[in-house]
Amino acid sequence: MTQTVLVFLDPAHPDGRVEDAGRPTLYATDLGVTRGDGVFETLLVLDGHVRKLPAHLSRLHSSARMLELEVPEHEAWERAIVTALAEYQRTVGVLDEVVVRLVATRGVEGEHAPTCWVGAFAPAHSAKRQREEGVDVVLLDRGYDSDIAERAPWLLLGAKTLSYAVNMAALRYAHSQGADDVIFTSSDGQVLEGPTSTVLVAHAETDDDGKVTFKRLVTPQLDSGILPGTSQGALFAAAKEAGWELGYGPLEPEDLFDADAVWLISSVRLLTPVNHLDGKPIGERSLVKTLTEELAGLFDRIA
Amino acid sequence: MTQTVLVFLDPAHPDGRVEDAGRPTLYATDLGVTRGDGVFETLLVLDGHVRKLPAHLSRLHSSARMLELEVPEHEAWERAIVTALAEYQRTVGVLDEVVVRLVATRGVEGEHAPTCWVGAFAPAHSAKRQREEGVDVVLLDRGYDSDIAERAPWLLLGAKTLSYAVNMAALRYAHSQGADDVIFTSSDGQVLEGPTSTVLVAHAETDDDGKVTFKRLVTPQLDSGILPGTSQGALFAAAKEAGWELGYGPLEPEDLFDADAVWLISSVRLLTPVNHLDGKPIGERSLVKTLTEELAGLFDRIA
Repeated sequence: MTQTVLVFLDPAHPDGRVEDAGRPTLYATDLGVTRGDGVFETLLVLDGHVRKLPAHLSRLHSSARMLELEVPEHEAWERAIVTALAEYQRTVGVLDEVVVRLVATRGVEGEHAPTCWVGAFAPAHSAKRQREEGVDVVLLDRGYDSDIAERAPWLLLGAKTLSYAVNMAALRYAHSQGADDVIFTSSDGQVLEGPTSTVLVAHAETDDDGKVTFKRLVTPQLDSGILPGTSQGALFAAAKEAGWELGYGPLEPEDLFDADAVWLISSVRLLTPVNHLDGKPIGERSLVKTLTEELAGLFDRIA
Repeated sequence: MTQTVLVFLDPAHPDGRVEDAGRPTLYATDLGVTRGDGVFETLLVLDGHVRKLPAHLSRLHSSARMLELEVPEHEAWERAIVTALAEYQRTVGVLDEVVVRLVATRGVEGEHAPTCWVGAFAPAHSAKRQREEGVDVVLLDRGYDSDIAERAPWLLLGAKTLSYAVNMAALRYAHSQGADDVIFTSSDGQVLEGPTSTVLVAHAETDDDGKVTFKRLVTPQLDSGILPGTSQGALFAAAKEAGWELGYGPLEPEDLFDADAVWLISSVRLLTPVNHLDGKPIGERSLVKTLTEELAGLFDRIA
């Protein structure tokens, strides 16, 4: 088992309360476990720097608002993260690549106080391998219309909740089909997102020497009920500066099959090319490589 | 806070391992809390007797199969329940009315062994009050077509998972509208279920003296992606013996507005009449009372 460092947010400990992750720390009556009632974020620390911290904290609060869950302010999380990383460095070693998970549950039944903690641990080996080698993906129906999010706020679309059983089941289903990952579609046939990632699509034009003369990066539009991707947001800003045209869906599966490259992007696995979608190869190998290297380079440099 | 008795299923303790619910017993890396990845059941113990135990254990295993989660066999759960009730009697007192919760999570990340426990605690006061006084209910869109369950097994429709954030959000939304509870509808307009209950609908005919001469009990059909209700199943069997006609959906909201009575039925709150649906009164007061008393009497007597 990977070693995990745990720091609980605790009003009595302004910098957070360090706990031994090898011991039980949660109550069996916590609504986080009995109802999946809570929110979370997963961040990446590279060489000691927490990437996209403001965007993650902002989305944590946005998710919590959708759940009507009061969670501590940014500063309390920031302090606990600093404590967790110091503890990680002391007990595990270097901070070259560390995953930080923020969790806030509705707390123990009847106590009306959230349970909040920060976990720090090493990324799964599969993350690096998939990023380098690409993934095979299946399209799966998410069951929702692309226009339901706004008229049915109780469905919590766009909130990153702890109720991830469907996302996990979709990944198991993909594995049973020999694939690595999933892109969800809406019941009206729009491309949504991965269970733990945002979908990016590129179209490019090249001249006779193979030099890219036009490049466009597209992602599904937010009002389709997907999670606002912190990685997508950061990469779009960087890509715009680098001369990419940007676009927002609606996207249909055909748009993915016709693309010059498709990626799943997320905070820990980073920019991961889709090699096959429903068994069909995506893009032309050398152009995919060129575009992936350019975007990965841009994404590496963001704060 | 309600006193809870906790018994963990543990191969080293065939009768279960009693734990102090006032202390942390779960790991922060348990996939039950980080991913809502697990299943549960809620049972009622009346006067020392566990109601519908085989049906609940059977549904727990059925839910677990949908999640590809291996959980202990019936006997291990039964032993842990006996231990929990003995401990409850010893520490809290009489077993006149006790809620028993069975939980199985996918366990601590990377350990590939489920975390399983039995909790025993007193029912919420609101359960009895709502059962006696009835509830006001709003119809809310669940966002799924009624025919998606079979073609999209990764959506886990029909499994009772720990990922209940949407159910909890729907209840909060109902409360914000001044209602007590929710009946979900499918995106194609069919009546589905409550967030924690099954919907029952009655039609009755009376003679000139007000005596019931015909009575029919209907519930939405299972292939609409709802949870198979253990209470509905038991009550249907008893009602059939008592001369009720039985029927299975599809039901539409109009069928509820036109009904002589509508109930939400569940294991702990039992048979609870719906007074108003989207603000409109349901049924005629004295007939609702007659039908409720008859069905509640039948339901009380089931094992």
